[in-house]
Amino acid sequence: MHFASDNSAPVHPLVMQALTRANDGSAMGYGNDDLSAQVVQQVRDLFEAPEAAVYLVPTGTSANALALSILCQPYQTVFCSELAHINVDECNAPEFYTGGAKLTLVRVPDVMTPDSLRAALDGEENRGVHGPLRGPVSITNVTEMGNVYSLREMTELCAVAKDYGLPVHLDGARFAQACVAMGCTPAEMTWQIGVDVAVFGGTKNGLMGVEAVVIFDPAKAQEFEYRRKRAGHLFSKHRYLAAQMEPYLTDDLWRELAISANTRAAELRAGLEALGLEIVNDTQANMIFFRMPLRAHYAAKQAGAAYHLMEPENVPEDTPVMARLVCSWDTPSETVQALLHTFRNAL
Amino acid sequence: MHFASDNSAPVHPLVMQALTRANDGSAMGYGNDDLSAQVVQQVRDLFEAPEAAVYLVPTGTSANALALSILCQPYQTVFCSELAHINVDECNAPEFYTGGAKLTLVRVPDVMTPDSLRAALDGEENRGVHGPLRGPVSITNVTEMGNVYSLREMTELCAVAKDYGLPVHLDGARFAQACVAMGCTPAEMTWQIGVDVAVFGGTKNGLMGVEAVVIFDPAKAQEFEYRRKRAGHLFSKHRYLAAQMEPYLTDDLWRELAISANTRAAELRAGLEALGLEIVNDTQANMIFFRMPLRAHYAAKQAGAAYHLMEPENVPEDTPVMARLVCSWDTPSETVQALLHTFRNAL
Amino acid sequence: MHFASDNSAPVHPLVMQALTRANDGSAMGYGNDDLSAQVVQQVRDLFEAPEAAVYLVPTGTSANALALSILCQPYQTVFCSELAHINVDECNAPEFYTGGAKLTLVRVPDVMTPDSLRAALDGEENRGVHGPLRGPVSITNVTEMGNVYSLREMTELCAVAKDYGLPVHLDGARFAQACVAMGCTPAEMTWQIGVDVAVFGGTKNGLMGVEAVVIFDPAKAQEFEYRRKRAGHLFSKHRYLAAQMEPYLTDDLWRELAISANTRAAELRAGLEALGLEIVNDTQANMIFFRMPLRAHYAAKQAGAAYHLMEPENVPEDTPVMARLVCSWDTPSETVQALLHTFRNAL
Amino acid sequence: MHFASDNSAPVHPLVMQALTRANDGSAMGYGNDDLSAQVVQQVRDLFEAPEAAVYLVPTGTSANALALSILCQPYQTVFCSELAHINVDECNAPEFYTGGAKLTLVRVPDVMTPDSLRAALDGEENRGVHGPLRGPVSITNVTEMGNVYSLREMTELCAVAKDYGLPVHLDGARFAQACVAMGCTPAEMTWQIGVDVAVFGGTKNGLMGVEAVVIFDPAKAQEFEYRRKRAGHLFSKHRYLAAQMEPYLTDDLWRELAISANTRAAELRAGLEALGLEIVNDTQANMIFFRMPLRAHYAAKQAGAAYHLMEPENVPEDTPVMARLVCSWDTPSETVQALLHTFRNAL
Repeated sequence: MHFASDNSAPVHPLVMQALTRANDGSAMGYGNDDLSAQVVQQVRDLFEAPEAAVYLVPTGTSANALALSILCQPYQTVFCSELAHINVDECNAPEFYTGGAKLTLVRVPDVMTPDSLRAALDGEENRGVHGPLRGPVSITNVTEMGNVYSLREMTELCAVAKDYGLPVHLDGARFAQACVAMGCTPAEMTWQIGVDVAVFGGTKNGLMGVEAVVIFDPAKAQEFEYRRKRAGHLFSKHRYLAAQMEPYLTDDLWRELAISANTRAAELRAGLEALGLEIVNDTQANMIFFRMPLRAHYAAKQAGAAYHLMEPENVPEDTPVMARLVCSWDTPSETVQALLHTFRNAL
Repeated sequence: MHFASDNSAPVHPLVMQALTRANDGSAMGYGNDDLSAQVVQQVRDLFEAPEAAVYLVPTGTSANALALSILCQPYQTVFCSELAHINVDECNAPEFYTGGAKLTLVRVPDVMTPDSLRAALDGEENRGVHGPLRGPVSITNVTEMGNVYSLREMTELCAVAKDYGLPVHLDGARFAQACVAMGCTPAEMTWQIGVDVAVFGGTKNGLMGVEAVVIFDPAKAQEFEYRRKRAGHLFSKHRYLAAQMEPYLTDDLWRELAISANTRAAELRAGLEALGLEIVNDTQANMIFFRMPLRAHYAAKQAGAAYHLMEPENVPEDTPVMARLVCSWDTPSETVQALLHTFRNAL
Repeated sequence: MHFASDNSAPVHPLVMQALTRANDGSAMGYGNDDLSAQVVQQVRDLFEAPEAAVYLVPTGTSANALALSILCQPYQTVFCSELAHINVDECNAPEFYTGGAKLTLVRVPDVMTPDSLRAALDGEENRGVHGPLRGPVSITNVTEMGNVYSLREMTELCAVAKDYGLPVHLDGARFAQACVAMGCTPAEMTWQIGVDVAVFGGTKNGLMGVEAVVIFDPAKAQEFEYRRKRAGHLFSKHRYLAAQMEPYLTDDLWRELAISANTRAAELRAGLEALGLEIVNDTQANMIFFRMPLRAHYAAKQAGAAYHLMEPENVPEDTPVMARLVCSWDTPSETVQALLHTFRNAL
Repeated sequence: MHFASDNSAPVHPLVMQALTRANDGSAMGYGNDDLSAQVVQQVRDLFEAPEAAVYLVPTGTSANALALSILCQPYQTVFCSELAHINVDECNAPEFYTGGAKLTLVRVPDVMTPDSLRAALDGEENRGVHGPLRGPVSITNVTEMGNVYSLREMTELCAVAKDYGLPVHLDGARFAQACVAMGCTPAEMTWQIGVDVAVFGGTKNGLMGVEAVVIFDPAKAQEFEYRRKRAGHLFSKHRYLAAQMEPYLTDDLWRELAISANTRAAELRAGLEALGLEIVNDTQANMIFFRMPLRAHYAAKQAGAAYHLMEPENVPEDTPVMARLVCSWDTPSETVQALLHTFRNAL
């Protein structure tokens, strides 16, 4: 019963097969092989962006930090929510890669609204050279709390950024899960509404370790290439990054895996609600934050379930505590039912 | 006939099998899985360094730059040869990761001697705060020109560094090939002679993309961990890095693959010498730099051979031009003979 | 009627005389002159810290950023209040000088309490390498809103920092004004309560442009020297920095000037209160934040008064708006009375 | 007999008077005062560059590093001579301010030629993302060894830079001494031949501590302003920087002082040559490098002369050793004659 994270899940069999296929003889390094070229084209096709520059990097942190480094000067500030991965889970990577830019936190824990974003932007009022200059707005979809911005909501946030003349970065570690939940195309949730650089995540959706950074203004491409190399994120045996993306982008596998994860989460959510438990977030994606009495947590732990408890355990057994459950592309319905069964028995 | 680079070679079958084995069910992320712990222990055993801190990163550039970042302050300077990978092939990664340290080039193209190293160290004489403070000495073995420092030579270089109170970094992108050529143990070529941080490369010797950074002073471990995460080089699905190292460290596979590459290079070298061609470097490892008439190069190219020509082609057909041939773990003897045959016919 | 800032004030005549005295013949550069050595000793005497390392730099931003750079690693975070100068008025200088550290804002606009500081420290809970490591606590006294921490309050904040094993930085751009208001010695408000590095400001109290950075642990001295030079803040003609500090430190001039500024502010405050105006901050130092009807502001502006209005002017004439008045070492009582007279007539 | 450095000299009396004049009442901070605006215009007039952006900073290192930071990306490399101040005397400031760019040393100790510059540029051949991208060319005039590029020589170096599409930085710590020796106008030695950003030094020619950075493309102005503030080099009491520049730019004082220093050096040089001593550099500016028997050095030292010996003293008394003599704006002819007299007696 593994619900700790979608990055605890294994690699999809088709991806393993593609790696084996790619492992045939010699190939030019550093992305100069045919498979790498093919994957770039596949991403462009998927995003309906024939001019886009596309780069593969191995981790979400490198994808976000490199993306921000081409959107943000060292004397600027990035706008994001308090719980944004770039703020709380990347150990100052954005500050490192941008050469010392700041993050200005929009005063919401997780989901930005146009008003809260505007308030933050206005808060970094014009203080001339004393304060940092306003830099990019960074949106995460699916958010850290598992919420999904609707297409309308994302459109509105982008519009605010554009009002202030600022570029937009999309942290898409769970791009697929968001896209499926939003019911739109990758183009609709990115360049068509004003996203300048999108991270198209794969690691949390069945790949071994690959994210595609999609840069819609190709004038930024050269800078990205130099910065990727400088950061040690250009793989010599690049074909093995491409080999992961290739099946992912074929026959909509990325979408299929996201649907599977989201569906399982919906099933889990319905089950928790049926048990009368409080659901904290309001999501159609693959993460659920909910509250249960501590004793239910003990029972689940006893039964071998793995997930993150988000609040301290030093409370009475009946106290509701918040926990996070994440479904992956490979979570079976049986496992969902087994967990629900464990909770049911403990309540 | 692929002699372009050892990073053009495929992944060893045992490594592919280990990846498949590791791809079984869920596992904790970020190195908190059993396989990752096991591999750390294997590296410690190999280096006879039970206290060493061991970290896996995906590329040689990240390994070197992170290693230097814990050895060098931003107001210091790193000593290395002019052709060192950290100087010519990492696009300012050392400067980036150290926060702006300088590289002071020892005035030799490739192989440092104690005297040339001392001259460079003395050149950065005490100018108080006006010049940078002296920082680490960085040694590469096998060098960029395919030369191998003997154990005595490395020992002497380390002794010079210690005379000046400086730490030593070993760029071991081809650690295995050097170790085999030197005829010593990993311990003998590192901590026993004064190396403080060694990069134990795997990518150029049959892995998909993993280097182990071995830090002999565990007091530096925490800093490295934070810096690795900050650089986006901590893999969430870390088990797939560990899975590559595990077979590599089992039954001396790393050594076996290096022996194979070095042996093939020796065979190639003997063949080239028999053809009367000038060998530029003096190596027992897997890279050969040599000169042949340009027409021989044309013939080889025609025959489909892939390798790097190191000098311009706009010369008469009889002019000797320098080329680089690299043998890999998987280079067959037949391919070596085929290339020699092609040259022979063209001369 | 100049109340815009204490850095709008001229240089004290004794300082000008000292500059003229210092301008006699040649002197060794970079602080290797007698006057520079003497001033270091004067600062040590003033702080009763015979071992302290003392460095002169030209601006408050350079003093703060260099101080933080020796207390904070790039993968750490600095704790400060939301309105701290290092957060809102230094254009990412702390991020630049620390090599990319983050600032974690204590959730108070201006004055930190032990509880709010603890909450911020606990908020950066142990997330392993995912979040930054906790770094220094930065206290500003006098604060940006003109408030003064009492000696007890500063002692408590330092104690919290020490509970977490963290160093403390004191932004003392208005050190003198605070010290006088606190009624204690420089030693009492710094190393005796746990401050590790203090900025002893001069520019806002009658000097031309000098701040002394006082580092109580001399082991940090060498690093500071190299970082100062690297930042371009080591003056070749250093004697002219020392020449400013020398009279400032003689016969308690620094204290006398601060008393003058604070006294004038008290007079101004009493006058504003007598007019029934709301005083926003609760200070014994030289800055007053208060509210008056917009029409009073218009009258003062008309009369030639210079100060900062802190709120927008696009409101009805009777609306109370906040303004900031700063008294300097040279503000005469007559000017205070003239401003009060102008307000009185307008109300 | 002070010949150690032109930054050991005092401040010119007219500058001291201007500082006193400026010290009258309150003034807006951060360069928003009338005197600061006037000085910007004076610099523009001097350079015949009505659009130029002009900024005052306190030190040569800050001027150079900030100038380079707007010309060079972190993944680029700066071309300069081995002895360039930015390489040997700024403690990694260029690396710091550019965010980690590299310096590529032109293989000449001091004076670059078009050929040596081309060789260095070609040496950073196109290695794609593996090497840094070519960045600015940095020229120093007067050089560190006291040599002066003629206008023709500077023009040729700039032409090489332009051939490669690269911007040019001029380190003009001794701009005035060079300009006088070259017999040209500031415009002729800068923007008219392709210099993009020039440092117009004052500190080494009679000011207390001010250099003007002159940026001929005003599109770079905003970035410079933010970077200057971020580095802590924006003075709150900016009028005292402007007050130094104002008399310097009035009635050609800058030129007069440089002529005085250069003339004295010519007199000194003639005297040394008359004594049969070897002159190492070939300069018309204010620095002389020459060789004398060690015993002459001992005699001068005994007589109280101050200057830098450039070679070790542990040699026999008759061995020629190299020394550096620098004349300043205030060096009197009598002092020159006294030093020559001392040498004459010792030979």
